[in-house]
Amino acid sequence: MSTRRSVDFRDVGVVSAADRGFTYGDGLFETVRVVGGVAPLWPRHAARLTRGCAQLRMPAPGIDAIYAEILRLSGGFPDAVVRVTLSRGVGERGYALPLRQAPTLVVAAAELTLDPVAFREGIAVRVCDLQLATQPALAGLKHLNRLEQVLARAEWTDPAIGEGLLCDMAGDVVCATAANLFAVIDGELVTPPVDLCGVAGVARAEILATRAVAVTRVGLARLHQASEVFLTSAVRGILPVRALGAHTWQPGPVAGALQAHWASLGLPLTTRAKDRDR
Amino acid sequence: MSTRRSVDFRDVGVVSAADRGFTYGDGLFETVRVVGGVAPLWPRHAARLTRGCAQLRMPAPGIDAIYAEILRLSGGFPDAVVRVTLSRGVGERGYALPLRQAPTLVVAAAELTLDPVAFREGIAVRVCDLQLATQPALAGLKHLNRLEQVLARAEWTDPAIGEGLLCDMAGDVVCATAANLFAVIDGELVTPPVDLCGVAGVARAEILATRAVAVTRVGLARLHQASEVFLTSAVRGILPVRALGAHTWQPGPVAGALQAHWASLGLPLTTRAKDRDR
Repeated sequence: MSTRRSVDFRDVGVVSAADRGFTYGDGLFETVRVVGGVAPLWPRHAARLTRGCAQLRMPAPGIDAIYAEILRLSGGFPDAVVRVTLSRGVGERGYALPLRQAPTLVVAAAELTLDPVAFREGIAVRVCDLQLATQPALAGLKHLNRLEQVLARAEWTDPAIGEGLLCDMAGDVVCATAANLFAVIDGELVTPPVDLCGVAGVARAEILATRAVAVTRVGLARLHQASEVFLTSAVRGILPVRALGAHTWQPGPVAGALQAHWASLGLPLTTRAKDRDR
Repeated sequence: MSTRRSVDFRDVGVVSAADRGFTYGDGLFETVRVVGGVAPLWPRHAARLTRGCAQLRMPAPGIDAIYAEILRLSGGFPDAVVRVTLSRGVGERGYALPLRQAPTLVVAAAELTLDPVAFREGIAVRVCDLQLATQPALAGLKHLNRLEQVLARAEWTDPAIGEGLLCDMAGDVVCATAANLFAVIDGELVTPPVDLCGVAGVARAEILATRAVAVTRVGLARLHQASEVFLTSAVRGILPVRALGAHTWQPGPVAGALQAHWASLGLPLTTRAKDRDR
């Protein structure tokens, strides 16, 4: 799968080795799905990126130019995943903010293929040993300090496991390594808060805006009692969980309704390339 | 001040925009002082880098080749600060470890100038608002996820403040943004543990190996009662603290003895360039 990439709107594939994205993980990213030249969730990505820049004291991003670049690089892919990385740019030695910040923008587009079986039948997940640290100054942001996710994802190689759930240090489930978590418990749709750790996902925001959801802590014992469990991601959409250890679920009506909502947004559960192959 | 830089032993200044150092902060670094062609603390840097690679599941680094590159790039600087960055290298999309890891090595050397007044008279410090998160899976390592330090250092711009102290979420002091902390309390030399957060500094390790030190939690109230407070850094050496808010100290005998030890290691408290200027 070939990736089309630009750095600061030029078709190159390198950044300065003195870029603070590389030296400190000092920046933010978004992973955007583009279907047929449209990114239906882009306004939510743009809002999070803008919020993140303010929180990290970076200049406000030029949202329209970034969106144009996303569409330019994903052009030609019927269904694309586009990563937008915005770092603080080149800096002198030391943590102090550069006097003049010149952020670096990297946009990388690749064709997206999704597994339709995962959407229909759900995926098996595990609980990771790594527990997320509590850091309210960074929680919610999709920043470039992702070693926790790297270490958690490195805990398993079994391809039958589709995702890993991450708990905080109190033992409550927060999210998956690259998705948010929802469950239906006692008939109520719930998702854990992400104000102390975790990422405030764009798909999560879409659901919070369109559904009644209780944002509440979810211990593993309560999760086991759920009637439905599913993961959400801007790129992968609504992914039912069918197994967590000995606990199994059938894809349920809430996940099904949200999958239909996703399709109505212009984000179908199968990618065009997959359809074409069959 | 010009920086001499190499990437994977070639004299270039760029890395792939798909490098996991840039996309996830997935890697480690060391900041090494080289005086007259020798880095006296290199064995401790090398040991920490090797430990960090094991902990992050990266291949063991080629220590001898890295040291040769440090000396090559710092050659010509009478006193140099050399940053060694080792990332996990280029990766596909997603947190999973690449099947074949090919780490990226960046070595960047610049002339070092130190402020002799800071060593003689000490520096003023403040306590940062940002509190360090507890993450035993990463604590101690000098990894590339440094947004906490970036945000903490961004809290002040007053040039009269030389460093910021960082507390954990229990309110105990752990370290400074780019240095470790030592204090003499009730006649005993103490330094906080770094097994839950903070970096296990190379200068700290040198002191632990050569002095009787109690590794113990240090609350702010206890720190105020110290007879001496000083910061330690592989590059900046032993820096007495002369003021923290209303509390003031004189540079004390323990810091003085360690400064003499530093000079005996071949790490003088003034840089040759500074001497030359006077």
